[in-house]
Amino acid sequence: MTLPPVSLDLTGDRILATYRITGDEPAVRETLEHLCVEQTIEFPADLVADDDIRRYLVARVEEVRPTASPGEGEAHDADVSFAVEVTGHEFPQLLNMLFGNISLRPGVRLVDVALPASSLAHFPGPRFGVAGIRELVGASEHRPLLATALKPMGQPLSELSAMAADIAANGIDLIKDDHGFASQPFAPFEDRVARCAAAVREANERAGTKAIYLPSLNVPADRIVDAARFALEQGAGGLMVLPGLHGFDAVRALAADDRISVPIMGHPSLLGSFVASPTSGIDHGLVFGTLMRLAGCDVSVFPNAGGRFSFSVEECLRIADALRRPLGALRPAAPAPAGGMRLERVGEMVQMYGPDVALLIGGELHRGDRRERTRQMRAAAEAAAATAG
Amino acid sequence: MTLPPVSLDLTGDRILATYRITGDEPAVRETLEHLCVEQTIEFPADLVADDDIRRYLVARVEEVRPTASPGEGEAHDADVSFAVEVTGHEFPQLLNMLFGNISLRPGVRLVDVALPASSLAHFPGPRFGVAGIRELVGASEHRPLLATALKPMGQPLSELSAMAADIAANGIDLIKDDHGFASQPFAPFEDRVARCAAAVREANERAGTKAIYLPSLNVPADRIVDAARFALEQGAGGLMVLPGLHGFDAVRALAADDRISVPIMGHPSLLGSFVASPTSGIDHGLVFGTLMRLAGCDVSVFPNAGGRFSFSVEECLRIADALRRPLGALRPAAPAPAGGMRLERVGEMVQMYGPDVALLIGGELHRGDRRERTRQMRAAAEAAAATAG
Repeated sequence: MTLPPVSLDLTGDRILATYRITGDEPAVRETLEHLCVEQTIEFPADLVADDDIRRYLVARVEEVRPTASPGEGEAHDADVSFAVEVTGHEFPQLLNMLFGNISLRPGVRLVDVALPASSLAHFPGPRFGVAGIRELVGASEHRPLLATALKPMGQPLSELSAMAADIAANGIDLIKDDHGFASQPFAPFEDRVARCAAAVREANERAGTKAIYLPSLNVPADRIVDAARFALEQGAGGLMVLPGLHGFDAVRALAADDRISVPIMGHPSLLGSFVASPTSGIDHGLVFGTLMRLAGCDVSVFPNAGGRFSFSVEECLRIADALRRPLGALRPAAPAPAGGMRLERVGEMVQMYGPDVALLIGGELHRGDRRERTRQMRAAAEAAAATAG
Repeated sequence: MTLPPVSLDLTGDRILATYRITGDEPAVRETLEHLCVEQTIEFPADLVADDDIRRYLVARVEEVRPTASPGEGEAHDADVSFAVEVTGHEFPQLLNMLFGNISLRPGVRLVDVALPASSLAHFPGPRFGVAGIRELVGASEHRPLLATALKPMGQPLSELSAMAADIAANGIDLIKDDHGFASQPFAPFEDRVARCAAAVREANERAGTKAIYLPSLNVPADRIVDAARFALEQGAGGLMVLPGLHGFDAVRALAADDRISVPIMGHPSLLGSFVASPTSGIDHGLVFGTLMRLAGCDVSVFPNAGGRFSFSVEECLRIADALRRPLGALRPAAPAPAGGMRLERVGEMVQMYGPDVALLIGGELHRGDRRERTRQMRAAAEAAAATAG
């Protein structure tokens, strides 16, 4: 039986999503018919009355156009619009609406999303952004921000904290935990965070630097907020979050928490499956750019082109653009290209990304005396900025 | 400079993971060298002393063998072992260790994981399992469990609760919210859950049935526990969770919470990107089977072969096997094949999965009088079970 017709009081505001779909036009139209229902009412369309549910809640195909195929055969880009009310103005349901069930169907990739002001208003975004971090660490707008990671796992706390101090005193701005630091028996979260936060604070005082230590919130889901507050009590000046492990909305909740008012760095762990296949998943710029920024990350780490991974220059620039371009009232965030970066590439990276970037160099900072290497990294960044400027 | 050598007090217990890697043997060996470091210490191997970090924390390649390629060219399966201590016995770091950064490298798929007893001991798993749910709903071991979803979004609460009552009174065991129900203006979470829970309870009392209502925890991350407790206070007999939105560890934390002692159903939203490409991501059986079960799901929903999605029969059976085969002391969970299922397929599905399954039929239950269709579904399931037995 057809359900009774429903009248809804909707604003008319719509979210526009673009999907890249493998297939010729008839096949793509069929996929879209499925998508429009699957991502919204998930109910046989012929059983819904000719009412506001069918007219407004079921997604609507706005345009279909041929595009260069990312795989075999043809592909089309389709703009699909959704009533903002379908999201309930909540981030998990926004993600579910955009790509929840359709993620299970190969040949569909989410490549762009445009949110209306009424939707963006629910996302405070980065609390600091690039400019805010510059102010905290005392970096002029001409030079790139500099970041590194404490590692490797297994080192005693005495060594990790000595490392943190050496790096803080010699000119790196953001010192994060290696993202694999959890609560291993050789370096439990509380002990590690307390020691490293103290080491960075003392080094800053001694050397007159303003380095920020960002412990990794690779902790059980029910301890994220407590772990963040513990870290801040210990003097950590920032936090690193892992939305691939804990979900983008856990990051949003943390970033929106006024008790936790420090810069947040997003790490890409486990997010690779969204981007690995060109014919399914979600675009690089959306995952590491838009979603990280909506979640409130001030810095987004991703593998740079030419490093240990396989992102292209174009994909990396799309991420950087999504982090920095105008997006409602959200502050621009800093792209942090990483993954096997070397000091020799600092100039090239500044050329590529411009100064509003956080250059993340990890293990290679230890190839030689780490204090000297840290100073070299800082000098290289300043030289590159001067050249670019 | 090389770091000072480290001695670690480790158990020797190791986790064995199998990766399917695209490439000929030399290329695969190179990828593995990268993987063993990337997933553990993430530090230039030549800068680590010849110590316990290098010997035990860096992952170890145990075996490499050719396998049928899922894509173009050759492929190999590689068994890689990890010291359990790397995980710190925490679920987020287990996932990070197994696939965190390497997810960013196409051509690597995680296809199997074997956890030692010392690791499994940290996962209580499903609180009820198939047998526990049978007891709660009064279903003999001969018949499949029956499930459906309240939908579509946009219907007023009066209609949704009437639907819940009709279905509960006529023989469906598990009645979940549509996973897209969040807190839309036309059906806010609290109102909806209160109304539907009351409707199912009253219908059960009237008809002598034992249906369970499972509200969808598609709520902001910082409200998951409160929303779950609210639902239980209102009389909901179960919960539906979405690990693709909130992370597997948020589900683990919920399932382990003794204040929340009801069956938990896992929904696959947003998890499709893990499985969509055969040459990257994570195996179907691991994602919808092992991980759901480790997280504590009693039921795992996934798209059945031949429905609206594209899982093969073999992939579906691998999921069912991972949910039900011996795994430490963890109870077997129920596979819930879904996604455009029809009443006519009940017999075939029981044949395929056996009786320890939860058949999920959504929209098609409304093709005709829903009370009659519900009774038909129940009768078809009992007939199929009798034939199979």
